[in-house]
Amino acid sequence: MDRNSQTNTGKYAADISSIREAQLRIDAFIHKTPVLTSETLNSISGRKLFFKCECFQKGGAFKCRGACNAIFSLDDDQAAKGVVTHSSGNHAAALALAAKLRGIPAYIVVPKNAPKCKVENVKRYGGQVTWSEPTMNSRESVAAKVVQETGAVLIHPYNDGRIISGQGTVALELLEQAPQIDTIIVPISGGGLISGVALAAKAINPSIRILAAEPQGANDAAQSKTAGEIITLPETNTIADGLRAFLGNLTWPVVRDLVDDVITVEDKEIVEAMKLCYEILKVAVEPSGAIGLAAVLSDSFRTNPKWKDCSNVGIVLSGGNVDLTVLWDSLRL
Amino acid sequence: MDRNSQTNTGKYAADISSIREAQLRIDAFIHKTPVLTSETLNSISGRKLFFKCECFQKGGAFKCRGACNAIFSLDDDQAAKGVVTHSSGNHAAALALAAKLRGIPAYIVVPKNAPKCKVENVKRYGGQVTWSEPTMNSRESVAAKVVQETGAVLIHPYNDGRIISGQGTVALELLEQAPQIDTIIVPISGGGLISGVALAAKAINPSIRILAAEPQGANDAAQSKTAGEIITLPETNTIADGLRAFLGNLTWPVVRDLVDDVITVEDKEIVEAMKLCYEILKVAVEPSGAIGLAAVLSDSFRTNPKWKDCSNVGIVLSGGNVDLTVLWDSLRL
Repeated sequence: MDRNSQTNTGKYAADISSIREAQLRIDAFIHKTPVLTSETLNSISGRKLFFKCECFQKGGAFKCRGACNAIFSLDDDQAAKGVVTHSSGNHAAALALAAKLRGIPAYIVVPKNAPKCKVENVKRYGGQVTWSEPTMNSRESVAAKVVQETGAVLIHPYNDGRIISGQGTVALELLEQAPQIDTIIVPISGGGLISGVALAAKAINPSIRILAAEPQGANDAAQSKTAGEIITLPETNTIADGLRAFLGNLTWPVVRDLVDDVITVEDKEIVEAMKLCYEILKVAVEPSGAIGLAAVLSDSFRTNPKWKDCSNVGIVLSGGNVDLTVLWDSLRL
Repeated sequence: MDRNSQTNTGKYAADISSIREAQLRIDAFIHKTPVLTSETLNSISGRKLFFKCECFQKGGAFKCRGACNAIFSLDDDQAAKGVVTHSSGNHAAALALAAKLRGIPAYIVVPKNAPKCKVENVKRYGGQVTWSEPTMNSRESVAAKVVQETGAVLIHPYNDGRIISGQGTVALELLEQAPQIDTIIVPISGGGLISGVALAAKAINPSIRILAAEPQGANDAAQSKTAGEIITLPETNTIADGLRAFLGNLTWPVVRDLVDDVITVEDKEIVEAMKLCYEILKVAVEPSGAIGLAAVLSDSFRTNPKWKDCSNVGIVLSGGNVDLTVLWDSLRL
């Protein structure tokens, strides 16, 4: 079953129907993650903040939602040969976990610079690791070789309607848990999460604002929005290892049309936000996971009159897989 | 209003009625904290574990429950003069927070060796700090002086029926959130939390097991249970700064009668459990908060045939206030 067999018939790779369908499909396999609030952080930010804690999701990140939706969308014959992907971490672990739940093999191509804890997650869930060089070319060519050898289905980390639909379930839950939310801030990388969230949230509440949070050192989405077309970068430079990918042809149209703005932040703001998550919220987030809080605290957001009336802000803490040594080294900066 | 004016008329300083009354009294002021589960930790422990995340409670620890119950039990005349306590941290911050909510002054006597982040919490909530030496004698005499000078009401951190009743609301919530629980493991120090939990949980389900988790270097509760009377220690030596107090005359009878066993663990087991909380659960806990997980993973618990059929185990992650440098130094051990 490919994405066309889902109920989505609209102009984007997913829609509210395919997202609701995904919610039913993955319900038994994922955690409904809690929403935390903190009066201290409300006071610091001058807004009411609602933290959707996807760091507590299975595998430590929201990625399990899309991976389960993709894998449980496969028909039995396709599934039997297994799945393959290339990923620096959270999607890899999520795909391994979802494959384990379905009882099929997962072949994971991992770039050599992936965080150790994320590779350990892949192995913990029984994923079969093949190493590649860190470049996208190497990742893709090694993955193609695995597909050829095994007949496994390639599941792209974000440029896939089933993945986008699965990630969109974050917004269904969040708006049920905190219906007063008028703005959602979502980390942006390849755009799978924010596409799903935007499609779901704007279908439920057309006036809700969807803002992307992006590292300055990997600001392809901000550049793409300005240019009106997909821009990729020759290299990226950010502590947020989960936010180094570029938009794809399925996520770009959603980001172009439904994401109200991209807020770019410096790595030092990400680190400061991680520290606040740790010290105030008591939640372990990875750099990519903390970027939404960094955005809401950034000068560019605070001083922009467009966002003055963003009073009830949902922030997706997207993941919590961080090596303790990395955390420590960054907090000492 | 002192504790006798509550509905409790039983043999202990609190009972299920005073605990339910506390729940109504504090409902508007506290967080209903989530219960997290992890299949990875289930697999490591060989049980189903339910983590009651009091580290996400206001002030970063369960202490806010008892403090709110005590402060909102005071009549207006008593309250107007404020409250005073001596505490190394979480009770101090909680009392300052609860006093702030009621709009009354809080005078907090803090021993000089209290963790920095806990003292910062006291100040954040507007508590007026007076320093004492680390000894109990100094803490008590400085507090007595403050009482004399201000007329404020002394609110003991644990040896108080209102405090015990407030802490017992943890168990009311937990058994509503995960009714299948057959065992609850609770950190023990002065015994306020475990007394409240035991009184509530055994009233709801008389066959539930209540186990205390205690550091080897502050094992007064284990020694007291063996001796059949309160034992205090000349000194304590544990990383768990929240677990260095001794049982009081109101908590001891409950611990003696209703706590099924005390599991003692080494500091290195506490540190290992903190690491698991951080890396697997993505929750920042302080050493005292992680001790329940340390207990369920300890050899003495695993190999004891008495606990073989503890299948669904509630673990109270009691608090999350830890200095990042302390966390790091302990994890490097």
